[in-house]
Amino acid sequence: MRSSPAAVSPIIPIDRDSGIPLHKQIYDGYRSAILRGDLRPGAQITSSRTFAAELRVSRFPVLNAYAQLLAEGYFESRVGAGTFVSTSLPEQLMSAPRPVATPAREPSGPRPVARRAFLVPAFPASATLPGWGAFGVHQPAFDQFPFPVWSSFVTRHSNSPQASAIHHIDPRGSERFREEICNYLRTARAVKCDPSQIMIVSGSQQALDITARVLLDPGNRVWVEEPGYTLERSVIAAAGCQLCPVPVDSDGMDVAEGIRRYRKARAAFVTPSHQYPLGSTMSASRRLQLLNWAQSSGAWIVEDDYDSEFRYESQPVASLQGLDANARVIYIGTFSKVMFASLRIGYIVVPRDLLDRFMAVRFAMDIFPPYLYQEVLTDFMKIGHFGRHIRRMRQLYGERRAVLVKSLREEFGNAVELHGAAAGMHLTVTFPRGLKDRDLAAKALRERLWLLALSPSYLGEKVREGFILGFGSTPAEQIPRAVARLKALVTG
Amino acid sequence: MRSSPAAVSPIIPIDRDSGIPLHKQIYDGYRSAILRGDLRPGAQITSSRTFAAELRVSRFPVLNAYAQLLAEGYFESRVGAGTFVSTSLPEQLMSAPRPVATPAREPSGPRPVARRAFLVPAFPASATLPGWGAFGVHQPAFDQFPFPVWSSFVTRHSNSPQASAIHHIDPRGSERFREEICNYLRTARAVKCDPSQIMIVSGSQQALDITARVLLDPGNRVWVEEPGYTLERSVIAAAGCQLCPVPVDSDGMDVAEGIRRYRKARAAFVTPSHQYPLGSTMSASRRLQLLNWAQSSGAWIVEDDYDSEFRYESQPVASLQGLDANARVIYIGTFSKVMFASLRIGYIVVPRDLLDRFMAVRFAMDIFPPYLYQEVLTDFMKIGHFGRHIRRMRQLYGERRAVLVKSLREEFGNAVELHGAAAGMHLTVTFPRGLKDRDLAAKALRERLWLLALSPSYLGEKVREGFILGFGSTPAEQIPRAVARLKALVTG
Repeated sequence: MRSSPAAVSPIIPIDRDSGIPLHKQIYDGYRSAILRGDLRPGAQITSSRTFAAELRVSRFPVLNAYAQLLAEGYFESRVGAGTFVSTSLPEQLMSAPRPVATPAREPSGPRPVARRAFLVPAFPASATLPGWGAFGVHQPAFDQFPFPVWSSFVTRHSNSPQASAIHHIDPRGSERFREEICNYLRTARAVKCDPSQIMIVSGSQQALDITARVLLDPGNRVWVEEPGYTLERSVIAAAGCQLCPVPVDSDGMDVAEGIRRYRKARAAFVTPSHQYPLGSTMSASRRLQLLNWAQSSGAWIVEDDYDSEFRYESQPVASLQGLDANARVIYIGTFSKVMFASLRIGYIVVPRDLLDRFMAVRFAMDIFPPYLYQEVLTDFMKIGHFGRHIRRMRQLYGERRAVLVKSLREEFGNAVELHGAAAGMHLTVTFPRGLKDRDLAAKALRERLWLLALSPSYLGEKVREGFILGFGSTPAEQIPRAVARLKALVTG
Repeated sequence: MRSSPAAVSPIIPIDRDSGIPLHKQIYDGYRSAILRGDLRPGAQITSSRTFAAELRVSRFPVLNAYAQLLAEGYFESRVGAGTFVSTSLPEQLMSAPRPVATPAREPSGPRPVARRAFLVPAFPASATLPGWGAFGVHQPAFDQFPFPVWSSFVTRHSNSPQASAIHHIDPRGSERFREEICNYLRTARAVKCDPSQIMIVSGSQQALDITARVLLDPGNRVWVEEPGYTLERSVIAAAGCQLCPVPVDSDGMDVAEGIRRYRKARAAFVTPSHQYPLGSTMSASRRLQLLNWAQSSGAWIVEDDYDSEFRYESQPVASLQGLDANARVIYIGTFSKVMFASLRIGYIVVPRDLLDRFMAVRFAMDIFPPYLYQEVLTDFMKIGHFGRHIRRMRQLYGERRAVLVKSLREEFGNAVELHGAAAGMHLTVTFPRGLKDRDLAAKALRERLWLLALSPSYLGEKVREGFILGFGSTPAEQIPRAVARLKALVTG
């Protein structure tokens, strides 16, 4: 193989019938691409031989144009490296360091946007995880992740990719990976499934979105937990459905109240293992009540089991899906909490009779999931690193949670109320005296303390104020000081 | 760090108030998990110490239960490795090698599925790329990809991930990567953009889907090319829109005919660089006509520039987006053709006034794209490997295409018609005498020759039959024989 130049050639339209000589056309093309900023200072220039071949002209006009561009300082030569756009162009030549190429004037005429695109809230730039440490929510202990082991698997699968893995298209993802997930879910979560029912997705958000596209029609009523997960609500709202908030208490969603308020609904979206954000575990009687309601009213249950791996003081709770004798539960899980979120891998366990539609919808949405991490996670699980990492994190998070609880008690005494079972990676607190949680969260952000306000998790008018405190990414020794800062903020 | 066991523990509900002794409850729990197949032969068993801690019981009942399970052959010990589910369980104990855990009876009661979920066709299992070689469509020369270099970048970014890359959430993706793509598009495709307008997605399919969700309301009329790309049509149909087929000729979409048939439409979806499947390049006058129509009727243009990198006999054609003075073009590109499809990376260039809605919709769909390949591709582009790989593939595919054209002429003479400019990774052929393309494609599949029938690319009644022949993944020396097999099939 001969070496190929690395440069990317600009598009220079050549018109042989214009009176303008070819070398002038090439010179003008380069000069204006540089002045527009389409070719940046330091960009490598395609060799004259290659560029002449690409333009289908002889080499002479290209050499001629390049010589002029060099002479005028638009290009510069570097010995042994080639020719580049000059990094020291006279300032007055450049309209701006990176000129904006689109027209400055306002776009004119009707510019219709879909009505349904306005059903979702704007991207909340300030609300996303601003940094690590106290009290970032949904953040695992990234520094504890076994990157050396992980990377060895990544390297292996990147170096010698399995043709089948790269080649085969299944909208559910890799079969080997689905088998591994199936084994895990049957053992650890008592989910009833076989690998054909599992669909790999880019995280629980895409899982919710695909599920909504398969099951929800505009105008349908959908039960959601109150308070609940705002991004889940975005998906349901985007589907044009009516959000029906059902209150949550220490036994999880109050199913009887849901039936009283909205007997007929297309679906109920729940987090029975560890309710988000209040942290309760749905009781056995509520689970049966929910399953019975779904069966008798022809509704679906969407179970988001997002951080079920982490329970610290009680036995693990089996999934709702495993209790269901009527295949009415769509089970959703994610690797974001156990591993890290930018993996973008989660899964759906789909009732058999819905598989055809889930596959059709997913194929039309984004065809199939990327291969590399599927292969890597398969091995990571098969060899036991996954189970080991969960166990280590369970102990670590349990310790961090205990320190957080102790610190909160020491600082606040009875002036704080803690919610939820000893589980997961966050703890929600409210304050009997009340406070303005959004204002305080904005203030804390300026001081680089990440407080997620509780009140935006409510849809209705009965709102509690407080904070959802993540402890996954905060070392235990830093927690007391973070709680002291919280105290100062709340009482200040 | 002390070593943690790799095993995943099963869920065994312990009831201290039942009359059943703890060791019997644990024994029964394991035994039935094994018989159900939830714990598979060979699965590692959690150590008695760890499991007792997880169950919050003393170690004695666990040891007692494990001893009985070992004695009865459900468990087996391996020296130095631990305890495992026996790999030689008596057959009569196991209901099946992998028993199906869900209830056998048919799900009962109403099981309502969204009407919109039926707007997309079923996943066509047989229609996806069945293997490499002649004449797989959209398949690059995978064996020519510089995996060693690529893997070195993958390893580096996997080993020491940038906290910022893993942490920062932007629904558009990594800023560094968007800058690299912006430079490339401005230079090589004459796209007018800055990095803020670029959104990284999982490929052109997700790009189409997001675009449809932002711009299309149910009932809108949408121009599509006839013949055209079936997966693009799935997206438009899934949005509940009316597909308006506009005929294509050797100058691309017949815009005048489109205006005559459907003057008012919300959008036109086009492939102007290399029309799929007929391969024509849209002429300059048609481009201006299309842009004028869009401006005067308040329509959007979605430009899918899917394999524009590869032109063999003429100068590259600038993007339609670059010609547009009114920011009415949504530009879509993909790395699937230049790199490989299972990367799942593409991008959208979004008009500035639409950015807010694109970000909101994408955030609700799947939050943000996975980090690793974004980082890797950024370096791959920055250091010049990307430009070099494109150039090498341009030469390779040009040679393969020339051999394919020559072979077709030798075998078929004038009994075959070739369509399209010398570009891309596929060549479409029709036969003046006519043939049943779907039947022949099915027959060819059984003989491991991959023929994609042309006729399903048509929506209307005027259908041409023929084949879309991919040549990207077929070495030049194998092409004559593949064409001979095609000849035998067509004339057989």
